[in-house]
Amino acid sequence: MLKLLVEQCPRMNSVLLFYVSYLLCLCLGFLCVVFVSYWNSAWRGGFAWDGTALQFNWHPVLMVTGLVVLYGNAAVVYRIPLTWGQNKLRWKLVHASMLFLALLLTVLGLCAVFSFHNANGTPNLYSLHSWLGICTAALFAAQWALGLAAFLLPCSPMAFRRLVKPLHVWMGGFIFTLSIAACISGINEKLFFVLKGSTNGTQPYSMLPPEAVFANSLGVLIIAFGLVVLKILSNQTWQRPEAVHEELSKPLLGEDS
Amino acid sequence: MLKLLVEQCPRMNSVLLFYVSYLLCLCLGFLCVVFVSYWNSAWRGGFAWDGTALQFNWHPVLMVTGLVVLYGNAAVVYRIPLTWGQNKLRWKLVHASMLFLALLLTVLGLCAVFSFHNANGTPNLYSLHSWLGICTAALFAAQWALGLAAFLLPCSPMAFRRLVKPLHVWMGGFIFTLSIAACISGINEKLFFVLKGSTNGTQPYSMLPPEAVFANSLGVLIIAFGLVVLKILSNQTWQRPEAVHEELSKPLLGEDS
Repeated sequence: MLKLLVEQCPRMNSVLLFYVSYLLCLCLGFLCVVFVSYWNSAWRGGFAWDGTALQFNWHPVLMVTGLVVLYGNAAVVYRIPLTWGQNKLRWKLVHASMLFLALLLTVLGLCAVFSFHNANGTPNLYSLHSWLGICTAALFAAQWALGLAAFLLPCSPMAFRRLVKPLHVWMGGFIFTLSIAACISGINEKLFFVLKGSTNGTQPYSMLPPEAVFANSLGVLIIAFGLVVLKILSNQTWQRPEAVHEELSKPLLGEDS
Repeated sequence: MLKLLVEQCPRMNSVLLFYVSYLLCLCLGFLCVVFVSYWNSAWRGGFAWDGTALQFNWHPVLMVTGLVVLYGNAAVVYRIPLTWGQNKLRWKLVHASMLFLALLLTVLGLCAVFSFHNANGTPNLYSLHSWLGICTAALFAAQWALGLAAFLLPCSPMAFRRLVKPLHVWMGGFIFTLSIAACISGINEKLFFVLKGSTNGTQPYSMLPPEAVFANSLGVLIIAFGLVVLKILSNQTWQRPEAVHEELSKPLLGEDS
């Protein structure tokens, strides 16, 4: 009995550490959504879909919620030990659905900014932030489509899935990192745009008014969320065990399922 | 003979692929340095250390060269297969020296911007870019000091090194990722500062003048460099083999060396 306990101890510690990290991931993700929503609601005047700055406000909220928080949470669902004994197809569908929702919010977030720019005669896609953001969104869409083709379509051959899987996993982390860099540059750019001092009757960004401290803190929260998600993804002992994994990783509705 | 060739083939392919990636890493790093230097030399008026904007110009050059290019190259030196048969202490010193030089350039780059701000009465550390940048530099300094204490000091116990190594490797990649995010937000911010249109007689950033295309391309090059470095670091087959590695990973001037 004692021997069994001693043997199980490192594994129990690892599982406990996972759940602490996962709880942190959920809390930080929730805080990111609260902060980005409150920033745009309390300081930027709220939301509308009328071509004004209120329409632009949907852009940061939808990008942070979709491309960072939902995306990050979708990336770590396979790591939850409670799911390892369950049918993998169910968790494949959870993973794909969360990412589909993330993609939908991303597209809506892009529509918000393009439509706002077009309504105000502002050119699109000139800043480095926008170049990075549009490439990240395009890579995400391609990654989702390739993931669907490789891991959910019944006609997908095993050899193709084996070839795609390491690329899919690695690109997933890379797209997530790019999305964080895009968010940081976007928040920074927005604060310089709106906190201009005497030009538009605000306290300048350089004086660190409460809005600047709050939005900078949103940036710090996004970085902290990214740190926790990437740490969970990089921990080998938190990967879904191979045996269970291999058995259940058949394409959805494939000939074996 | 044929059997040996067939057995060696995947390994030779892996080594060849490494050198292609490494060559790409060197070329992209070189291009990053050329682009950031040319941008600040041709469009931003060149360099000085006199409290003017010419002093600020050292900031992007030193940060990109130190915190991105030198840092990234230092991170991958252990992966070069040619070094695996050689004494690891030599490569530890190369790794630590390159990172020391990177840290020196980073500190100089920070001095350039702090001194420029102070000379012009501009507050320091208010933007999200500056918060991220200063945290990245502080983490880098802490990482270097901990690396020195754990892997180069003769009194460092083996148990301490074993404990620190995974953290050192993981934090190395994380700091590199943060430094890229800081560079992207910095380039974006700088272009909004200087390409103001009629206010300062330039073509506005939104019209994508040649300087904007060039500096945005620098951002793309930095992302591409980051992609290659992180891909090299994440490939398990390119890690220095454990046996050789363990034998030679004694602290510098330790009782066994």
